[in-house]
Amino acid sequence: MSPQHRALATREAILRAAAEEFDRLGYDAAPLSAILERSGVTKGAFYFHFPSKEALASAIVQVQDDTWPRLTGQWRDRGLDPLRTLIGLFEEAVSLLSRDVVLRAGVRLAADRDVGYPGLSSAHLRWEKVLGDLLLAARDAGQLRPGVDPEAAARTLTSAALGARLISSATCRCADFPERMREVWRLVLPGLATDEWCPPALEVLAAPQEP
Amino acid sequence: MSPQHRALATREAILRAAAEEFDRLGYDAAPLSAILERSGVTKGAFYFHFPSKEALASAIVQVQDDTWPRLTGQWRDRGLDPLRTLIGLFEEAVSLLSRDVVLRAGVRLAADRDVGYPGLSSAHLRWEKVLGDLLLAARDAGQLRPGVDPEAAARTLTSAALGARLISSATCRCADFPERMREVWRLVLPGLATDEWCPPALEVLAAPQEP
Repeated sequence: MSPQHRALATREAILRAAAEEFDRLGYDAAPLSAILERSGVTKGAFYFHFPSKEALASAIVQVQDDTWPRLTGQWRDRGLDPLRTLIGLFEEAVSLLSRDVVLRAGVRLAADRDVGYPGLSSAHLRWEKVLGDLLLAARDAGQLRPGVDPEAAARTLTSAALGARLISSATCRCADFPERMREVWRLVLPGLATDEWCPPALEVLAAPQEP
Repeated sequence: MSPQHRALATREAILRAAAEEFDRLGYDAAPLSAILERSGVTKGAFYFHFPSKEALASAIVQVQDDTWPRLTGQWRDRGLDPLRTLIGLFEEAVSLLSRDVVLRAGVRLAADRDVGYPGLSSAHLRWEKVLGDLLLAARDAGQLRPGVDPEAAARTLTSAALGARLISSATCRCADFPERMREVWRLVLPGLATDEWCPPALEVLAAPQEP
């Protein structure tokens, strides 16, 4: 392994160890000593990469801040219809959160930092906007039932995702988050999408998911 | 005012002042001095009623712990059909939370106390059970669409309510929580209730709400 690769691997090991602790305990309750021990790196190596616990938390928050716009762009670029884009984006974000402890810890840390209310960060309001835009496009494409308010539907989906993530985080570290979100879609889609668009959307959800 | 009435009024003034601070700031960030000042009572009067900030918080948590089972019992005793009971119970709980700062603070404090995950308390899991039981009864009464899983629907409604409450708490102290929950129902009911039961349920939601 070249020195550059080794440095990168060390940085990743620290990030992952820190994420494990932050995801379980939150920022305040996770001691730096436990992070160091879990990562298996020396103090010197640690401080070479991160000058402080605060810097480490910032790096973890940054990972998720970078992930969501990139993921949204990727799904938009696929050129699928808006409803399919929305469901695919949602499914992938949920799946990533349930599998990737660094992302999950980043979401928790972002909420810890935002003053205001525990459990919530400004990222949720950005999601509401992303979903609202896709649902407006879905309405214009004739995919929504008459009378459905796209912005109200975006608020409901954001609320359901936030609540499901919190409950799933607290009870099983997000292991059942994908299934909880599929339950949300199954209940919501018949009231959201037209009779033409609802069945294929439900089929997407029924398809085997990536591990 | 009799001494008994005056003592009760003082206790209420302290509870309400404390709730205002806890609702805004959470337990740790709300200083006892601010609660005392807001309540307008003397230190002597305060300590006569509550030996500590902790005792005060416990009293506020107790108010909401007492409220939910009583409210559930009242709605069950009305003898309405299960779906109407469920919607009525939900609407009243949401309306109470948006109007009553003592209840709202109690919910926040309960979540602060439960170890585990910020924003969440074991009360949410109890709600999931209450909703699940009512939805099972609704299924047995032929009110649910074929294929709807009552327990999955209870999980989705609990998640949506939790998420909507957090977002509404953080952005406007729950002022728009009732409207957010009506949006949830409008989107969910067509996929949940049969064509026979859905329209009257939607009518209940469209009726003017208590102030």
